[in-house]
Amino acid sequence: MKIARLEHDGHAVWGVVGSESVELLPGAHDYGEALAEATSAVERAALPITNVRWLPPVVSNTKIICAGLNYGKHAQEMDRGAGTYPSVFPRFADSFVGHDDQVVCPRNSDQLDYEAELAVVIGKPARHVPVERAMEYVGGYTCMAENSVRDYQMHNRQATPGKNFERSGALGPWIVPPDALPDPREVRVIGRLNGVEVQNGGLDDLIFSIPALISYLSAFTTLRAGDIIATGTPEGVGMTRKPPRYLHPGDQFEVEVSGVGVLRHGTRQEN
Amino acid sequence: MKIARLEHDGHAVWGVVGSESVELLPGAHDYGEALAEATSAVERAALPITNVRWLPPVVSNTKIICAGLNYGKHAQEMDRGAGTYPSVFPRFADSFVGHDDQVVCPRNSDQLDYEAELAVVIGKPARHVPVERAMEYVGGYTCMAENSVRDYQMHNRQATPGKNFERSGALGPWIVPPDALPDPREVRVIGRLNGVEVQNGGLDDLIFSIPALISYLSAFTTLRAGDIIATGTPEGVGMTRKPPRYLHPGDQFEVEVSGVGVLRHGTRQEN
Repeated sequence: MKIARLEHDGHAVWGVVGSESVELLPGAHDYGEALAEATSAVERAALPITNVRWLPPVVSNTKIICAGLNYGKHAQEMDRGAGTYPSVFPRFADSFVGHDDQVVCPRNSDQLDYEAELAVVIGKPARHVPVERAMEYVGGYTCMAENSVRDYQMHNRQATPGKNFERSGALGPWIVPPDALPDPREVRVIGRLNGVEVQNGGLDDLIFSIPALISYLSAFTTLRAGDIIATGTPEGVGMTRKPPRYLHPGDQFEVEVSGVGVLRHGTRQEN
Repeated sequence: MKIARLEHDGHAVWGVVGSESVELLPGAHDYGEALAEATSAVERAALPITNVRWLPPVVSNTKIICAGLNYGKHAQEMDRGAGTYPSVFPRFADSFVGHDDQVVCPRNSDQLDYEAELAVVIGKPARHVPVERAMEYVGGYTCMAENSVRDYQMHNRQATPGKNFERSGALGPWIVPPDALPDPREVRVIGRLNGVEVQNGGLDDLIFSIPALISYLSAFTTLRAGDIIATGTPEGVGMTRKPPRYLHPGDQFEVEVSGVGVLRHGTRQEN
């Protein structure tokens, strides 16, 4: 079952995604409530899938925490070794657009770079969770374009500025349940720029596994249902290309994750 | 006029703080609405100030962004030079308790350190704001105990883990309007541990001024009414003392900022 958040009559609503339509869940205010409402057998209003305006599947108090430099080959291309602990930073919800929307090339930088990622969605409150029990707290998965503004990222000790430009990334299109993901050894995270594959990494290249990330984050904060953990991007980002290839207005970027689906965004210039 | 957030009948409400009571603003859902409601002349229910349970003056979508190493003498005591750009990181709202509440010494660290800070509260949407106009976007000030768990802060490239332990810091007690602050050259930020002064810095030691911080942050994200910018802590934190002096259960820490007031918290052990 795919759970999404979308715009309907000017409001954000949650829905269940089918092959040709999205059934609306008008009583749900967050991912947990959407899951509960989705499993009740009632007649529901539906929108044709071609008419849907997708929103990021998060609400205002969702914690969105991203792991940086978490694929071995990407850490190499960025000339950074693996740390002893996961390198993690939050992103604000307004740094993302939904599926099929357009990210924004900021007026104060021409270094908006793409990053295809698998994102874990938490299923129940997690605090002080040991690694060996961490997978019990996974409520689903989604895709993230964890795009970064490289000059602002690199001029600062903290990732915050480069990782939080408004509408610079994308999230969605929907959340799939944990069993939708194949064996982690077979999961591929693929980035395509204007239809051309530019990233293709396997979860077997992760420095810190999904359970390790959940356990580490839960050591300091409570993760709640609907919270998002982005697992890092594979090698092939634009800044390491010679010459670098950043996103320009008109570019289309896709994130495909095995078992989850395809997240796609366009690119426009900031007004 | 002091605007606070407090618990009343099991719910969070905003209120106007007087000398002996707090008048309730039941229609306000955020700082902006509280300000608007506070200026209307109506009869209001009030609580005796001695009965108030204070909450951090933030709501679930408030951005809380902190500047690190922003006092010259503190950067020196931490053996870090001033960066070219402000070092900034977000804190989640649940990393704070309200005034007169207790912060939590985590079970997985004995290095919870105090940090007294002045926090700026944004008054209206700010994006791409030049330094010379930045003060127009200040909506008020409050106090922050921007307490940090030093081992988690220092073992990571990112400040996120050490700065986001649940209920590790404090925020409040209230928000005062911009004109409550004296001339910035006369503002002192004072930290007291069990009544003994341990920090006392002036805003004249700030590396990045309040306008510089607002301008830099607004270059990547939209700051909205009620968003919080913590301006950094003066020298005298516990980890630089010989031997280091971290917070223990039973400790009381106070943050006093000229013109704003005194924020106080106790300390308890995590269960």
